[in-house]
Amino acid sequence: MNEPTYTDLDRERLMQKVQMHMSEKRFKHVLGVEEVAVALAEKYGASPVKASIAALCHDYAKERPDDEFELVIRRDGFDLALLNWNNAIWHGLVGANFVARELEIEDEEILQAIRLHTTGAAQMSLLDKIIYVADYIEPGRDFPGVVEAREIAMVDLDEAVRYETKHTLAHLIENENAVYPKTLETYNHWVAKKKRS
Amino acid sequence: MNEPTYTDLDRERLMQKVQMHMSEKRFKHVLGVEEVAVALAEKYGASPVKASIAALCHDYAKERPDDEFELVIRRDGFDLALLNWNNAIWHGLVGANFVARELEIEDEEILQAIRLHTTGAAQMSLLDKIIYVADYIEPGRDFPGVVEAREIAMVDLDEAVRYETKHTLAHLIENENAVYPKTLETYNHWVAKKKRS
Repeated sequence: MNEPTYTDLDRERLMQKVQMHMSEKRFKHVLGVEEVAVALAEKYGASPVKASIAALCHDYAKERPDDEFELVIRRDGFDLALLNWNNAIWHGLVGANFVARELEIEDEEILQAIRLHTTGAAQMSLLDKIIYVADYIEPGRDFPGVVEAREIAMVDLDEAVRYETKHTLAHLIENENAVYPKTLETYNHWVAKKKRS
Repeated sequence: MNEPTYTDLDRERLMQKVQMHMSEKRFKHVLGVEEVAVALAEKYGASPVKASIAALCHDYAKERPDDEFELVIRRDGFDLALLNWNNAIWHGLVGANFVARELEIEDEEILQAIRLHTTGAAQMSLLDKIIYVADYIEPGRDFPGVVEAREIAMVDLDEAVRYETKHTLAHLIENENAVYPKTLETYNHWVAKKKRS
């Protein structure tokens, strides 16, 4: 196993660093995501250590001001079209760079799961799926359909990705929120019927 | 005015050519779109002649077999990613090339309205909007919301584009149909709140 060393003390230290960067409410959400992500990792055979680290860090950058993101987008060679978007898209896709630099997390699998946790992707690793789904169903979430999403996640992770993707997109449209093109790619891969009619 | 000559006889001849390429039901739809498109052109100050021609030709290629579209996509230099899609997307975007070649229609404004009639676009001319909306609300259409769409079209064409775009996308997702990326661009421009949250 390519399992990183991860003692209780490592986890405590990481939790402290994360907690410093967010509201109490968001930190509670983070702990909820971690709990579910570790459970899903154990169920589906992913690394519970990576699930814990990715979950603890997934919203690390969510409370950063926009200008910090804009700076990193320009500095780190991101597609400049990202400047037309906002925190909802940046905090995962760009936020992973804050996690790598400031928390010194180098594991590409963990960073990718952080990058994709909001938009998903056509191609997702097991860990990507776990963080994407855990973020949607953690115990603090309360929206129509969350109970069904939790039930599905316990029996079929891919089906949970599908369910979340469809309902997230429908919700964005109902609320007339902009939809990031990668979110549509996720939908077209995971939800749309193979016959594109 | 840059109005093409268009006698009753011209219209009759065009109708005959179009009718030869489609079912009776579809031809009835085409005449419904024409009726509405001409009315909208008169209301909003577009050319009723161009509205008539574009409407009569908008579904000209809809009953062509897939292999004819595939041939034209390769021959005429379209993005080959289009090969992953199907008639629903091809009949407008690629169908305009059939209209240009076979019906000898050269007016770029008319051809563009045909190209965009299914997906819409972020940037649409007055004629583009008229054909896009007329196709959605013509008298033969019967779906929840069509009465509201008709009412809106009579008072605010842009708002009708917005309404149609939102409800079309919601409908595609409800039915788990694939969504062509250009349709999302149309949505993000016409429907989504300016703040991309």
